[in-house]
Amino acid sequence: MRQAGRYLPQYRAVRQKVDFLTLCKTPELAAQVTLQPVDVLGVDAAIIFSDILLLPEAFGMALQVDESKGGPRFTIPIRTESDIDSLTVPDPSAKLKFLMEAIELTKRELRGRVPLIGFCGSPWTLAAYMVEGKGTKDFRHVKRLIYDQSAVAHKLLAKLADALVFFLEAQLAAGADAIQIFDTWGGILSPDNYREFSLDYLWKVVSNIRRNGAPIIVFSKGSNECLEEISKIGADVVSLDWTVDIGEARRSIGERVALQGNLDPSALYASPDKIRHEVKLILRKYGKGSGHIFNLGHGILPDTPVDHARTLVDAVKEESVAFHE
Amino acid sequence: MRQAGRYLPQYRAVRQKVDFLTLCKTPELAAQVTLQPVDVLGVDAAIIFSDILLLPEAFGMALQVDESKGGPRFTIPIRTESDIDSLTVPDPSAKLKFLMEAIELTKRELRGRVPLIGFCGSPWTLAAYMVEGKGTKDFRHVKRLIYDQSAVAHKLLAKLADALVFFLEAQLAAGADAIQIFDTWGGILSPDNYREFSLDYLWKVVSNIRRNGAPIIVFSKGSNECLEEISKIGADVVSLDWTVDIGEARRSIGERVALQGNLDPSALYASPDKIRHEVKLILRKYGKGSGHIFNLGHGILPDTPVDHARTLVDAVKEESVAFHE
Repeated sequence: MRQAGRYLPQYRAVRQKVDFLTLCKTPELAAQVTLQPVDVLGVDAAIIFSDILLLPEAFGMALQVDESKGGPRFTIPIRTESDIDSLTVPDPSAKLKFLMEAIELTKRELRGRVPLIGFCGSPWTLAAYMVEGKGTKDFRHVKRLIYDQSAVAHKLLAKLADALVFFLEAQLAAGADAIQIFDTWGGILSPDNYREFSLDYLWKVVSNIRRNGAPIIVFSKGSNECLEEISKIGADVVSLDWTVDIGEARRSIGERVALQGNLDPSALYASPDKIRHEVKLILRKYGKGSGHIFNLGHGILPDTPVDHARTLVDAVKEESVAFHE
Repeated sequence: MRQAGRYLPQYRAVRQKVDFLTLCKTPELAAQVTLQPVDVLGVDAAIIFSDILLLPEAFGMALQVDESKGGPRFTIPIRTESDIDSLTVPDPSAKLKFLMEAIELTKRELRGRVPLIGFCGSPWTLAAYMVEGKGTKDFRHVKRLIYDQSAVAHKLLAKLADALVFFLEAQLAAGADAIQIFDTWGGILSPDNYREFSLDYLWKVVSNIRRNGAPIIVFSKGSNECLEEISKIGADVVSLDWTVDIGEARRSIGERVALQGNLDPSALYASPDKIRHEVKLILRKYGKGSGHIFNLGHGILPDTPVDHARTLVDAVKEESVAFHE
């Protein structure tokens, strides 16, 4: 669900030397930390080390990372129609070349061991960050935009959907085997607003990418009311957070898409025995069949013990055998 | 959904003179700001001005409010079994006398104009605040507790449920006409954990209160997966946030309970015409009948224009007539 990440000592060793954005923009280092969880934990896929806000940065927004203040933020958020008009859809092969090089390098170093996943934020989630400047409690500015100036919001979302098609096609061309789209803030919207301001643009992105069969995973956190509609936009996999029962989700949408998820990341605080127990609960809820990609329901927490992450991977590999068909 | 609140100039005038906790603990002032929205907006009920964290404070925890740091917090969170063992269920008539006096005073000043609602946090939500010390992003400490030391978590929750029964009975005895229980953090739990660590204790509280027919409203924010189960714990009203379709909620649980909600508070940023449009959408979704208490889906936002709040109240009163039976 989240790349290498902050809990691995090997990752922290790299970060002692370079800041977060330098790491993202140095293909050799990004490739190095992308491979860490494959080597250390034995996970079944790698996800390229990057950040969803590098696309808005490529649009020309100044991105700043001060981890004491809680991660990346835009120093000057966009708030007006003229702000939005001044944004130019970036050419990813120029402005995000470092990422494409990181993907190429990672693919070479993986030598086919596991597939490599590229990713992006959804139009709505990127818009929320661009308008707020950062993750906030109430998302007042972007909410004000959709309620009070919906045409302006649509202009921004349409631009982002266009940019994402180019961006994801570039990642696939560089060698990504699959794409995950993170709609981290879909869940702050009412169902009607979700359909209008998030789902419609997810659908635009998914249906416009030329992808030669590469699978697309959509994760719209907290948008459980609309799972059935999410399953119909053309994605191959729908990712679930931990607030939905994966058995029920399978019964409602499991014929149409594969499901990814859905262990609460904080379950990794538990003892190894308890972790294995939680793994079995989820496997049993999904039941027999091949349409389940076991995963956390959101990013791994930074203070997760590495041993517990390894316990999870081992438990999934061992316990899932009984559920293969 | 939330008392008087920060958006009313009349409230801010009072707050210029006293800090938040002094306001809560001075019955005359608490009564004064409780009445403000009734007088200024013409809402159909008053909710006593207080804070859910005053109950943990009565348990002996030091409560601090620094609004620049985002509201109330406990300076020393509880984290261990011995911390929990040292908590004594408070006698509300002694430790929360100021609140009971504020309720008595408000009732006298209301002179029967509208009913007065008392309230509390749910056992789970209070436990989350007590263990974390404040609202956080991931709720790591309380999640660690439920995953790694569930028996200790249950000990705390049982104590809170006992205390809440006394606390709510005292509010009713002081004159509250109804009770709302806020389970603000129910939505951070998986459905299984929600049942075990939140719903079961909500049920205990609701089923143990002697209440002489006073209605109980339960609001478990973001726990939409479990709405049907929530509707079966004996509460009279289930409050909905804005991420659920109230028409669908009525079809699934509307025979059993009345529904409260469910406008996104940020809809009040919109123009008066648009606010009226949003009101009509929700009224139409619920349909005809008397089981709907129109309300926001969470607390009113501090930068809401007062005129827009008044537009909402007027629009609900006017547009709902067509839906009365």
